[in-house]
Amino acid sequence: MTTINWGILGAGNISGQFAHDLVLNNSEKKEIVHIIASIGCSSTTKGESFIKDNMISKENNGGIAAVVQNYDDFYKNKDIDVVYIGTPHIFHKEQVLKCLENGLHVLCEKPMNINAKESRELQEAAKKNNLFLMEAVWTRFLPIVNDIRHKVFDQILIGDVYRLMVDFSYDAKLETCPPGSRIRDKNLGAGALLDIGIYCITYARLFLDQKLGKEHTPFDLKSMVTVDPKDEVDYNTSILMKYSTGKQAILTCTNYIDTPMPFARLEGTKGYIELFAENPARLRSYKVHLKAGESYEVKDDSEYLGFIYEADAVAKDIKAGKTENAVMPFDETLLVMDTMDQVRSDNGFSYPMD
Amino acid sequence: MTTINWGILGAGNISGQFAHDLVLNNSEKKEIVHIIASIGCSSTTKGESFIKDNMISKENNGGIAAVVQNYDDFYKNKDIDVVYIGTPHIFHKEQVLKCLENGLHVLCEKPMNINAKESRELQEAAKKNNLFLMEAVWTRFLPIVNDIRHKVFDQILIGDVYRLMVDFSYDAKLETCPPGSRIRDKNLGAGALLDIGIYCITYARLFLDQKLGKEHTPFDLKSMVTVDPKDEVDYNTSILMKYSTGKQAILTCTNYIDTPMPFARLEGTKGYIELFAENPARLRSYKVHLKAGESYEVKDDSEYLGFIYEADAVAKDIKAGKTENAVMPFDETLLVMDTMDQVRSDNGFSYPMD
Repeated sequence: MTTINWGILGAGNISGQFAHDLVLNNSEKKEIVHIIASIGCSSTTKGESFIKDNMISKENNGGIAAVVQNYDDFYKNKDIDVVYIGTPHIFHKEQVLKCLENGLHVLCEKPMNINAKESRELQEAAKKNNLFLMEAVWTRFLPIVNDIRHKVFDQILIGDVYRLMVDFSYDAKLETCPPGSRIRDKNLGAGALLDIGIYCITYARLFLDQKLGKEHTPFDLKSMVTVDPKDEVDYNTSILMKYSTGKQAILTCTNYIDTPMPFARLEGTKGYIELFAENPARLRSYKVHLKAGESYEVKDDSEYLGFIYEADAVAKDIKAGKTENAVMPFDETLLVMDTMDQVRSDNGFSYPMD
Repeated sequence: MTTINWGILGAGNISGQFAHDLVLNNSEKKEIVHIIASIGCSSTTKGESFIKDNMISKENNGGIAAVVQNYDDFYKNKDIDVVYIGTPHIFHKEQVLKCLENGLHVLCEKPMNINAKESRELQEAAKKNNLFLMEAVWTRFLPIVNDIRHKVFDQILIGDVYRLMVDFSYDAKLETCPPGSRIRDKNLGAGALLDIGIYCITYARLFLDQKLGKEHTPFDLKSMVTVDPKDEVDYNTSILMKYSTGKQAILTCTNYIDTPMPFARLEGTKGYIELFAENPARLRSYKVHLKAGESYEVKDDSEYLGFIYEADAVAKDIKAGKTENAVMPFDETLLVMDTMDQVRSDNGFSYPMD
């Protein structure tokens, strides 16, 4: 049995989903016990509500009572092995650096931060401190995603893949969203690309290329960004990628609508695969349609929200003394951040932090 | 009652569909009688089969027996008012010029020809001869298409439109298609863009802009073309268009697959519209989904294959002495041809005729 001690930074929605999976895991007595040692939070009340709402108890937390700490105390907590950062991306850079400076390994929600320049600074800091750092691109660790990759790349189930279409959108209800919210405020890194477009790119990376990071298959990139005249951020961005192999990705994202299903289609010469999910980041089922006639559906009915798989991967890496993960190495983070930088730069859209 | 005399050049599949609609129209004693005066064809046998297969008889042809003529005799036939050219696009330029030189008005299947340079030559010839010339973009004349345009532009049914996605694809069964066929032979103008991508662009023109031709709302264009290494033509092309209003079109076409439905989605701030069709050029139904809750479907169950509407428009124009159509003026043909030229040029894909 392996035990790993997590600090959770930020007591918002995504941290709650992450905690849900750890709690469920521990309730089932799995090989790895994910202890939530501390919740780092600006408000004690909010942190205590987080523990209560997510039903974190000694019984499902390896006999440990999770504590709530302010940020300063959190960073100095010696009971924490690794920090999960679940705050909005604008805060990531400073928080990752603080964790690393204090000897804490880090799993940081996507996007790692606002641009590749900052990402490189974070990589340098992790290397200097010989600590683990990974962007929490949980989609890459879902068994159902890897099941598809196995069928596409190893079994050549749908023949030669030539096209992937992905539409990851959601109705952010902008009209009722306050201007200072992370969804609308440019100073908080608002916009569709960094928030959801990153998943479109992730699916293109997952399904059109077997290689990662610096080893990736070369691709060309073209994009269109529509910047809202009032909020000055992108609520609609579309991207074309074409790999040197000829494979095309047609990617689009918007904050104006909940994506109708299927949200994606991967096509090959022998058939195609449609992807379905309530939240496209968390693929829930896929349908295979083969030209030869066969059609079938594969569903993931797990009660996990999908975060446990990356959490397990991180725990194993840290216990093995690794500072990078093989599925989501830092070079892959840099590749995706560079790609998003190029999309923004090609369309004259920048953030104050650029 | 108006009577117009058609010559049909080329006895292939699309000419048959065009003839079907004329025959059905005349069987119903409509305001306009579309007489098929002659079938221009390289083989008498093929022309006679065409008349038989499409059940063209004196009874449904204004009392006239359609004749079969070789090309030379066809061009000199004084009984023809207007020629419908239904041959592959590689032959259009020469045939349009021959018609115009012989005093015949022309409705020419899309694309008008291979590139905008040739289109401009044809426009000059039509102007010089003071004859009617129109590209047969029949989709623009479908009542169901104009019903959507009315709802979108006049009734603002789905609010501010921001995104259109169109996938027009079909499985050309390339593996069983002979290399010399119009689907595979570069010398015959093969490839997805000119054959089906033109409809994607047409839908973007129809649903994202109310203006036509030289008056069109400006747009930026980015694209990816994958050229097959063996046949050296594009079997997969994707295009992004962004209008100065910020509206985006995400367009893609391929010869590898029959498009799953819906083939298109038009989105606005108040809801979206999904488009369905067996052949996306011939929109057959659409579903409106409003955020306020309402959803409904509109179907076109007409027995017409969809060609009668453009045929009627052409008949009215010619009877009124016009040389251009207001729905599909020649400048709009040039705009779309220029757009396709740019897509090819941006991706280094050219035809021998360029």
